[in-house]
Amino acid sequence: MKKLAVIAFGGNALLRSGQKGTCAEQMQNVADTCQSLLPFLKQGYNLVIGHGNGPQVGNVLIQNAAGEQEGIPAMPMDVCGAETQGLIGYMIELGLNRVLVQEKIQRNVITLVTQVVVDKDDPMFQNPTKPVGPYYTKEQADAYTAETGAVYKEDPKGRGWRKVVASPKPIGIQNVDIVKRLADEGNIIVTVGGGGIPVIEKEGIHYGVEAVIDKDLASAMTAINIKADEFYILTDVPKVYINFRKENEKALDTITVAEAKQYLAEGHFTEGSMAPKIRAAVLFVEATGREAIITEATKLGDPTCGTRIVK
Amino acid sequence: MKKLAVIAFGGNALLRSGQKGTCAEQMQNVADTCQSLLPFLKQGYNLVIGHGNGPQVGNVLIQNAAGEQEGIPAMPMDVCGAETQGLIGYMIELGLNRVLVQEKIQRNVITLVTQVVVDKDDPMFQNPTKPVGPYYTKEQADAYTAETGAVYKEDPKGRGWRKVVASPKPIGIQNVDIVKRLADEGNIIVTVGGGGIPVIEKEGIHYGVEAVIDKDLASAMTAINIKADEFYILTDVPKVYINFRKENEKALDTITVAEAKQYLAEGHFTEGSMAPKIRAAVLFVEATGREAIITEATKLGDPTCGTRIVK
Repeated sequence: MKKLAVIAFGGNALLRSGQKGTCAEQMQNVADTCQSLLPFLKQGYNLVIGHGNGPQVGNVLIQNAAGEQEGIPAMPMDVCGAETQGLIGYMIELGLNRVLVQEKIQRNVITLVTQVVVDKDDPMFQNPTKPVGPYYTKEQADAYTAETGAVYKEDPKGRGWRKVVASPKPIGIQNVDIVKRLADEGNIIVTVGGGGIPVIEKEGIHYGVEAVIDKDLASAMTAINIKADEFYILTDVPKVYINFRKENEKALDTITVAEAKQYLAEGHFTEGSMAPKIRAAVLFVEATGREAIITEATKLGDPTCGTRIVK
Repeated sequence: MKKLAVIAFGGNALLRSGQKGTCAEQMQNVADTCQSLLPFLKQGYNLVIGHGNGPQVGNVLIQNAAGEQEGIPAMPMDVCGAETQGLIGYMIELGLNRVLVQEKIQRNVITLVTQVVVDKDDPMFQNPTKPVGPYYTKEQADAYTAETGAVYKEDPKGRGWRKVVASPKPIGIQNVDIVKRLADEGNIIVTVGGGGIPVIEKEGIHYGVEAVIDKDLASAMTAINIKADEFYILTDVPKVYINFRKENEKALDTITVAEAKQYLAEGHFTEGSMAPKIRAAVLFVEATGREAIITEATKLGDPTCGTRIVK
């Protein structure tokens, strides 16, 4: 039986800070990240890829706002998220296709548009914290709130006011059984893009909601559901650190779930950055007893890469 | 063995002319179209759905152009097409989910991001005819041509200058074997959205191109490849007509491939509207010997619905 790995790409693996986000830049970034999967491909791993969409959905939301001036109604957040699943899935397909052809490996790449069910009573809906989309003046933000009920908060860096949405927990991954079956057959599956399109369920019927599901959590849920042997979360630092960027900074090679939780509680990990990755890794390890690895993409395949979270 | 049908939704089944194209409007249109599939669902048909994206990709292109003013680089046509596959696929999933839950039918709905391979030497690339995206002044259009090499043509109705792209023939549908297998198992598959994301192949490697593949042709190719028993093309008129909107207008119940070709040659069918539907129907019937049906969505399930194209 071949090993099955879930790999969560960061949205920033596709669109890097400092870049403008042209198509050529994004295609190149994706191609680089796909190239880093080569050790897995050579070892015949079965693969499922999750990915973020922060920079991309940010751009789509700004484009939607700009399009309103031209008479094109803006789409809500769930629909914009669905758009980025198409956009990023296609770019990953092209990046993988190139590596597969160059290495003469025959594998299908299949991108599924993926809804992820969240609880309509998730307490996070009462406390939206995730800033999304364009910056507005206070007057504009107040007007939108009056019109739509959406919540806007002032940016801590003073760039203006931004809509904030909830980040509810994923509780169900659409078509996850099919993901498992297709992946076990050797097809490379791209799924839960951007953490999945957030939907709530009422008497079985799905309704899109404006929210952002953490992509590492959604990927971890996927990994648990498909009984993945290994779970990788890609990031842009070689290891997880405690006392990050302080004098006593320390890179971590292997930590237990208990240690991870302690470091989390002690505030070693930044919210919106390393903290959700640690939580997702802990979720996977606690559910499966297997290891999760947080690493730079370029180090994949090196047995000492990244930080291992173990039972 | 259950019957397998391919049904091609028009882009206008989702966003109707005269509508602004709000999310609520599009969701309602999609829900209506999905509701019309009920006879197939009740009879236990296996189903594959193709769909257009004309109005949606038009909107995304305008949003991309508007976003450039805000510093967001516009994506090329293939990437915008991929975005609409996510957008429309998700809306169809919600529409079908509602019908399935209401009728207590258990079926998965699976949307695949789908590339469609075209020939890099397709003669249509020398003669781009399909207008896409925003209208520009002649000066703007000339500047874009100088910058990008893209071709712009004046709109016959005097609304300005628009980019024109090629409409090459589909020659390969990505993952079509997987579409067949999943559909034969009872999963409802949404694929070849907008005619598919157009790519050319060089030594096995795929490259996106700015083009529009006719969605009826791509759906017909899919139907042929998966050995569909029936092929339906949805439109907004009850029948196909000869001498359409003239005194001697005649609705057609059943026509042979030979008659269809003759009527095409005589110019009875409008390019960009009924003509490509007839060509797609002819392609399917010639390849399979089975019937293709062009009909209004609301008439599906009525054995006398629409116009049948037979061998």
